Amino acid sequence: MDTGPLESWNDGAAKRAIVEFVTSAAREGTPGFVPPADRIAVFDNDGTLWVEKPAPVQTAFVLGKLAARVRADPSLAGREPYRAVVDGDEAFFRALEAQDPGAVTLMVRALGYAWEGTTPEEYEAEAARYLASWRHERFGLPYTGLVYRPMLELFDYLRAHGWRLFVCSGGGRDFMRVFCEELWGLPRENVIGSAPEFAYRDGVPVRRAELHGPLALGPGKPEYVLARTGRLPCFAAGNDDVDVEMLQSARFALLVVHDDDVREYAYTDNAERARATAERSGWTTVSVKNDWNTVLTERPDQEVTRCHR
Amino acid sequence: MDTGPLESWNDGAAKRAIVEFVTSAAREGTPGFVPPADRIAVFDNDGTLWVEKPAPVQTAFVLGKLAARVRADPSLAGREPYRAVVDGDEAFFRALEAQDPGAVTLMVRALGYAWEGTTPEEYEAEAARYLASWRHERFGLPYTGLVYRPMLELFDYLRAHGWRLFVCSGGGRDFMRVFCEELWGLPRENVIGSAPEFAYRDGVPVRRAELHGPLALGPGKPEYVLARTGRLPCFAAGNDDVDVEMLQSARFALLVVHDDDVREYAYTDNAERARATAERSGWTTVSVKNDWNTVLTERPDQEVTRCHR
Repeated sequence: MDTGPLESWNDGAAKRAIVEFVTSAAREGTPGFVPPADRIAVFDNDGTLWVEKPAPVQTAFVLGKLAARVRADPSLAGREPYRAVVDGDEAFFRALEAQDPGAVTLMVRALGYAWEGTTPEEYEAEAARYLASWRHERFGLPYTGLVYRPMLELFDYLRAHGWRLFVCSGGGRDFMRVFCEELWGLPRENVIGSAPEFAYRDGVPVRRAELHGPLALGPGKPEYVLARTGRLPCFAAGNDDVDVEMLQSARFALLVVHDDDVREYAYTDNAERARATAERSGWTTVSVKNDWNTVLTERPDQEVTRCHR
Repeated sequence: MDTGPLESWNDGAAKRAIVEFVTSAAREGTPGFVPPADRIAVFDNDGTLWVEKPAPVQTAFVLGKLAARVRADPSLAGREPYRAVVDGDEAFFRALEAQDPGAVTLMVRALGYAWEGTTPEEYEAEAARYLASWRHERFGLPYTGLVYRPMLELFDYLRAHGWRLFVCSGGGRDFMRVFCEELWGLPRENVIGSAPEFAYRDGVPVRRAELHGPLALGPGKPEYVLARTGRLPCFAAGNDDVDVEMLQSARFALLVVHDDDVREYAYTDNAERARATAERSGWTTVSVKNDWNTVLTERPDQEVTRCHR
């Protein structure tokens, strides 16, 4: 078995299942063969490609934008989700984290409105400024260090076997497009997800408040993959309940299980349904603790952690 | 100048402008250099990549579907656009051909409704059956023979210089995705355009009546390119008025001018604004008559023409 590029993966059921699927897919004339055109692999981002605890990298960017809007227009502070943001309403944030449709819709509307009229360049500059100063509160790492090394190796392994890779996240397509080329080696067009429509003002595209298409969560994920690629995913990887439909639509489903509170985080929130479905459906599960001998792409820096606390 | 792959292009201003732009774009350190990530080239389809006269290949597919619906439910015959289809209302078809928003909206709604609940496999099978028996009424050629050979050579030339190619058409993304791999050598994900949303019924995606995003016409074209690729096009090619905004958004704009009524068709309809803008903006124009020494990928077959009339 050619497993050279998967060196951060321990020998075990997960690695063996991946290698068997990918090598069979490339072997014409076998039952596992996947024609090259169909070799579409799709990955969720937060919790699948990088650390999402204690909060996804994008969260403070979004909350900071809403807080800035309330500072500029205090009358907003009485309206949802601004009130919840200003008050730090825990119930709202729990609902949002659980990707409750009501809370998500309120947030998406507010964010659509917050960035309405912004050009892509302005949005990218805002996101880049935010990312440049962001540090993980426990590991002290910049966002670039939070990526799971085993997943980057999996990217390389799939690419080497003729797969086309996509990232599909509910968390905002254009935020990921700021770093996808540098971080994942993926061109922007291979990043799919919730995004606004654009309008033209004097020949310049600007963000509209409305979404272009549905939210890329739950059934929205396979819908985005189908819309973007003309196919359902053949290989899909995710880690929580809003990834279930995408994983169900794939021939090979990989579920990352966060069970390592030393090198990362151990948690089951928003993943109960995904784990139950994995067991019932025979998906391949990846234990961060047992299947990965290296987790992050950078070594947590205690110095930096102290500096930024 | 390396113009090897452009053998169907006569030496002239158009070929020279293309070669100069593409070779400069690949040369680091020159003002014409285009970083690899930005090398996005987008092509309109009907009239840019293949013959669109006397009617685009897709037209009879769409009209046949509407006629079948009226046969199944005669009460529809009194409603637009069914009435216009059944009556062969020329004013309606002229408005549709000119991509008049009112006529297009009526048609899009009817088509959304016509294919509502269809799975991607069912839609593809319908389109494939239609395409298999379709012949061009004048040239007797199947759809595969109507592609402009010079444009396929341009595809190869751009690819060889590190460009990523996309086709963006208002005429229905999923119809093009049935043949894009075979005809253009482009994966389905590189075909952009108007398309429906999908819903999930018992885990199976089915077409909804509503569009996913706006119509890919006029300003909708650069919007689709931006949404899909994260960038505006750097190189764009089109042939009529609904391509103007896409061409304006590009650094290099190519406008195909249909002026050869012997080997193809000579017409100016729906292209007046595009041609005026080309002149004003210094776009590169391609005269089918003068710039191409070969037009189609297959030789018109008079035998077949007679058989199918």
